[in-house]
Amino acid sequence: MNKDFDIAILLFDGITPLDAIGPFDVLGKVPGAHVKCVGKKTGLVRTKGLSLGLNVDYTLADVTAPDILLVPGGPGADPSAEDPEIVDWVKSVHQTTTWTTSVCTGALVLAAAGVLNGLEATTHWRAMETLKDFGATPVRKRVVKQGKVVTAAGVSSGIDMALSLAADIAGEEIAKAIQLGIEYDPEPPFDAGDFETAPPERVELVRSTLARP
Amino acid sequence: MNKDFDIAILLFDGITPLDAIGPFDVLGKVPGAHVKCVGKKTGLVRTKGLSLGLNVDYTLADVTAPDILLVPGGPGADPSAEDPEIVDWVKSVHQTTTWTTSVCTGALVLAAAGVLNGLEATTHWRAMETLKDFGATPVRKRVVKQGKVVTAAGVSSGIDMALSLAADIAGEEIAKAIQLGIEYDPEPPFDAGDFETAPPERVELVRSTLARP
Repeated sequence: MNKDFDIAILLFDGITPLDAIGPFDVLGKVPGAHVKCVGKKTGLVRTKGLSLGLNVDYTLADVTAPDILLVPGGPGADPSAEDPEIVDWVKSVHQTTTWTTSVCTGALVLAAAGVLNGLEATTHWRAMETLKDFGATPVRKRVVKQGKVVTAAGVSSGIDMALSLAADIAGEEIAKAIQLGIEYDPEPPFDAGDFETAPPERVELVRSTLARP
Repeated sequence: MNKDFDIAILLFDGITPLDAIGPFDVLGKVPGAHVKCVGKKTGLVRTKGLSLGLNVDYTLADVTAPDILLVPGGPGADPSAEDPEIVDWVKSVHQTTTWTTSVCTGALVLAAAGVLNGLEATTHWRAMETLKDFGATPVRKRVVKQGKVVTAAGVSSGIDMALSLAADIAGEEIAKAIQLGIEYDPEPPFDAGDFETAPPERVELVRSTLARP
């Protein structure tokens, strides 16, 4: 990869912003990185509930050959995976990326574009079955690398994925400096982030609200 | 606090977006939460390097009595702490908040508004000394609660702070469901997020780039 490289972050209405911003604040700090926020049209996309707006600076047509593609998830990822304009763009740019990546249900968009065909991949726990329907082999790991295709599990896992990718791109010392810069020395107040050990009623509480547009 | 409550997130040019978005994707999911993105004027604020735009939906004058104030950090926090319009607004809304919070160098803005006078507080490691100059007692902890004032350390610590606050607001079960929803079961690929154990050359590498506007 060149010393200077482009990262295209796909934005859409109904994005879970942490899926994009965790990796943004890691990969965007790798020396030479140029982040481009890409979407169907320029201007704001909104989160579910409309309370946060992120700006699309480049249309899909503007960005044809990013070195890295990052597809975040959220309730808006499900309709994005059924949007031919988005899916065709992902299919096209994937041909020449150095890395094609997703966080959370962003994997559904990659899967719809055929990127995950026959590959192991991960996504948010609520979407593991859907991934299988698309022809991928779901694996319950936080980050799954298959050649140049890297998928991360739910939301916050994008930070772990991006640090690992930063090391692949620029070496461990740079990745560690970025980790120090974002003071990523996590102390979750509860041990409640793992789907495998979550009580069924909690899973149901989360599941019933997550994919609503 | 009411069943319905307002969270004001202060946005400014030079924000580190993860400081705001980590807590956004946690606190914004507490039942009854209404997030308002507030700034000096409506429209986009930009990150350092200009590659990401977040939208300000409300001016400072529009939001006079949020239940929760969240001040994120970043290179733009330093000038914000010297901006009388912002500092006066923070001073004013703090009078009636239920919680006044900061992430990373957002603490400098709280400190400039006198909110941290005589209190223990934390911030990003690069700004601990500055915090002392402002009359606060810097404490090297990930999250520091002093009555209704809650400060978090650098960038990613806002997620831990917000989960703890979600439990205070809505109970542990809700906080745990949110943690499961964002699949926050961190697996940093390196053990490099702690300032105390970082080699001096790495600290210097990070320090030399962090506060540049």
